[in-house]
Amino acid sequence: EVSFDPKEHQHLRYNPLRDTWVLVSAHRMKRPWAGQVEKPPEEHVPRYDPRNPLCPGNTRANGEVNSGYDSTFVFENDFPALQPDAPDPGSDQQPLFQSKAARGVCKVMCFHPWSDITLPLMEKHEVVKVIDKWVGLVEELGTTYPWVQIFENKGAMMGCSNPHPHCQVWASNFLPNEPALSDRCQRAYYQKHGEPMLLQYARQEAEKKERVVVESSDWLAVVPYWATWPYQTLLLPRRHVLRINDLTTEEREGLADIMKRLLTKYDNLFEISFPYSMGWHGAPTGPHLKEDNSHWQLHAHYYPPLLRSATVKKFMVGYEMLAQEQRDLTPEQAAEKLRNLPEEHYKTRHN
Amino acid sequence: EVSFDPKEHQHLRYNPLRDTWVLVSAHRMKRPWAGQVEKPPEEHVPRYDPRNPLCPGNTRANGEVNSGYDSTFVFENDFPALQPDAPDPGSDQQPLFQSKAARGVCKVMCFHPWSDITLPLMEKHEVVKVIDKWVGLVEELGTTYPWVQIFENKGAMMGCSNPHPHCQVWASNFLPNEPALSDRCQRAYYQKHGEPMLLQYARQEAEKKERVVVESSDWLAVVPYWATWPYQTLLLPRRHVLRINDLTTEEREGLADIMKRLLTKYDNLFEISFPYSMGWHGAPTGPHLKEDNSHWQLHAHYYPPLLRSATVKKFMVGYEMLAQEQRDLTPEQAAEKLRNLPEEHYKTRHN
Ligand SMILES: O=P(O)(O)O[C@H]1O[C@H](CO)[C@@H](O)[C@H](O)[C@H]1O
Ligand SMILES: O=P(O)(O)O[C@H]1O[C@H](CO)[C@@H](O)[C@H](O)[C@H]1O
Repeated sequence: EVSFDPKEHQHLRYNPLRDTWVLVSAHRMKRPWAGQVEKPPEEHVPRYDPRNPLCPGNTRANGEVNSGYDSTFVFENDFPALQPDAPDPGSDQQPLFQSKAARGVCKVMCFHPWSDITLPLMEKHEVVKVIDKWVGLVEELGTTYPWVQIFENKGAMMGCSNPHPHCQVWASNFLPNEPALSDRCQRAYYQKHGEPMLLQYARQEAEKKERVVVESSDWLAVVPYWATWPYQTLLLPRRHVLRINDLTTEEREGLADIMKRLLTKYDNLFEISFPYSMGWHGAPTGPHLKEDNSHWQLHAHYYPPLLRSATVKKFMVGYEMLAQEQRDLTPEQAAEKLRNLPEEHYKTRHN
Repeated sequence: EVSFDPKEHQHLRYNPLRDTWVLVSAHRMKRPWAGQVEKPPEEHVPRYDPRNPLCPGNTRANGEVNSGYDSTFVFENDFPALQPDAPDPGSDQQPLFQSKAARGVCKVMCFHPWSDITLPLMEKHEVVKVIDKWVGLVEELGTTYPWVQIFENKGAMMGCSNPHPHCQVWASNFLPNEPALSDRCQRAYYQKHGEPMLLQYARQEAEKKERVVVESSDWLAVVPYWATWPYQTLLLPRRHVLRINDLTTEEREGLADIMKRLLTKYDNLFEISFPYSMGWHGAPTGPHLKEDNSHWQLHAHYYPPLLRSATVKKFMVGYEMLAQEQRDLTPEQAAEKLRNLPEEHYKTRHN
C-alpha cells in the first residue's frame, strides 16, 4: 500500500464557504505547457496620460471632468451595469422564465493620482486612505442596499481596461449568488458549531502554519485549504468583525500593512505586477443591518489567474466549467512559495 | 413610468438548473472596449504535423505510438488529473479540513485524423462516428463510475493546447459539483411539477421561438433564458432521454446534423473557428443506474467566451467571481443574431 501524499495523489477538498469540492491533482504540474501564453503585464505606464479618463483633471466619456485629486477619487461608473431606476420586469412568472427587478449603483474608485503606481508600492498612509474610503462607501451605500460589493480587477488579463490603480463598488437591491451562498454556509456552520466558521478557521490556520502567507497581530492571509485558483488567498481579521466599517483605526492601519506585504509577495512571485480579481465579503447591509449576523466574519478573497509563470495562466475551462474545479499544485505548495518570497518589492530591490 | 425593455433595463433572470440568478445589463454593450484583445484563432493548421502527439502514427510524450487511425481515436491522457489507484487521504476529519478520495480515468478522443478540420466542416457520417464513440465511452466507463464527463475545450482561448480536433472524457468515483447541483435542481422540479424540467423547457422554447437557434424534429438548440456567456447555448433532444447512450440511431444522426448546423453558425458569427468549452450532462451512471432518474434530461452546454468580435471576449472576473454573473446582451439578442446567420460555413462559402 502506497501512503497518501497530497503532492502526488489526487484528492478532493471541501470548501465550507461554498459547500463545494475542489479536485487537487498536483502531479499535473509535470505536464508540459504548449498552450496559449499571455502578454505579460505592461510595466511602463506613464504617470499621467492626458487621454486616460481616470487621471486627475481629465474629461471622461460623458463630458464630466475629474477633480484634480491628490489621494483617492470616487465617481459614478459611466457604463453602469446597475442603475437606481430600472423598471420592474413584471411578474407574469412561469417557473422556467423567472425574472426580477435589479437596481443599484456602480462606482469607480481611483486609489492614487498616479497611473504608474500600485497598492504594494504606495505608502502605507496612502493605502490607509483607500481603506478609509472603502469604509465610507460601505457606510453610505449600506444604509439602504443589502449588498455593497467592493472589487478590484487588476491587470488586462483580468478584464481590467485601464492601468490606473482603481477598484469598483457595485451596490444592489438584491443579495447576489456568491454572498447568498456564503451567508447560508456560515449560518449553518454557526448553528451547528456555535462559533463563526471563519473565526475558527483563522485560529486553526494560525496554529497549523502550513498555509499561512503573511500574518500580524490583527490579520492573517492564507492560501485556503480549499483554494481553487493556484495562488488564491483569503485575508481576514483575527478578531470577530462583521463588516469593514467595524474595523478599529489600528486594524485599518494593520490592514494597510498586511495588504502591502501580501501584494508585494504576489508581485515578487513572477516579478511582474501580479494580476488578480479581489473583493470584500462582510455581513449584508441595508435591511440586514437589523438582523443578527454573528455567523459572519469579514474577509477578502484574492483570485489570481497565473499558474506557471508571468505568461501562463490556469484555464478554468471544460472540466472546471461543466463538472468541478481542479487545481494543479497543492495549497500548501502555493503558500510555501509565497511565504518564502522576500517582503521587499522587486522594483525597489532592483533599484 | 417607463415601460420595461429587457434590452435597455437591467434585470435578474433565474437559472433553474443551478438555482442561481444572472444579472442582464444589455445597455452595457454601449461601453467602448479599451481592454485586452485576444489573438484570433489560428486559421492555418497543417493537416499533418510530425511533432503533434495527436496525429495518426505519431509518438506521444510517454513513448506510446498512436495507431494510424482513419476515424476517431481514443487513448489515456498522458497527464491525467484522475488516476484509478490514488490512495485515500484518510479520515482524521475536522469540519474545516475535509478531504476525500478521488479516483477515475482521463481519456482523450481525437475526432478525425486531420488536424485542420473541425466538427462543423466534417462530413455528417464522420460526426456520427464521434457520437457513437461518445456513446461507447459512456457505456463502458458508466458501468462503474457514477459520472462520465465528456467535454471539449476548443481554441487556445479556452485552454486548449492542441489544434487537432479532440475532446476529453474524465470519469470519476464521485459526482462533481456541477452535475450534483443540476441533479438536485432537476429532482426538486420533477417532484413539484411532475414533469422533467428540461423536457417542459424544450417544449416551451419551441413554442416561444425567440431563443431558438436551430431545431429539427428530434433536437433543439436555444440560448437559454438564463444564459451567462454571451452566446451560450443549450442543446437537447425533444424526447425524454436520460443519457447519451439512450439515443436511437436516428437521433444520433439528427444530433450530428444539428451539431453541424449550430457549430457552423458559431463559426459564421465572427468568421473564425469559434472557441468554446462544451460538455454533456445526462443522468448519473454506475451505482445510479439502478435508481429512478426520470427527473433527468440529456443535454449539452456550449460556453463560448467571445462577446464583441473574434478578439474581444467577455471577462468573467471581479463582480462575476465575487458576487454574481453579469451579461451584456440579452439571450434573445444573441439567439436572433445566431439564428439569422447562414447555415453554410464561411470557409466553404468563400471558396
Ligand atoms: O487537459 P488539458 O487540455 O491539458 O488542459 C485543459 O483542460 C483541463 C480540463 O478542463 C483544464 O484543467 C486545464 O486548465 C486546461 O488547460
Ligand atoms: O467594468 P469594467 O472594468 O469595464 O469591466 C470589467 O469588470 C466587470 C465587472 O467584474 C466585468 O463584467 C467585465 O467583463 C470586465 O471587463
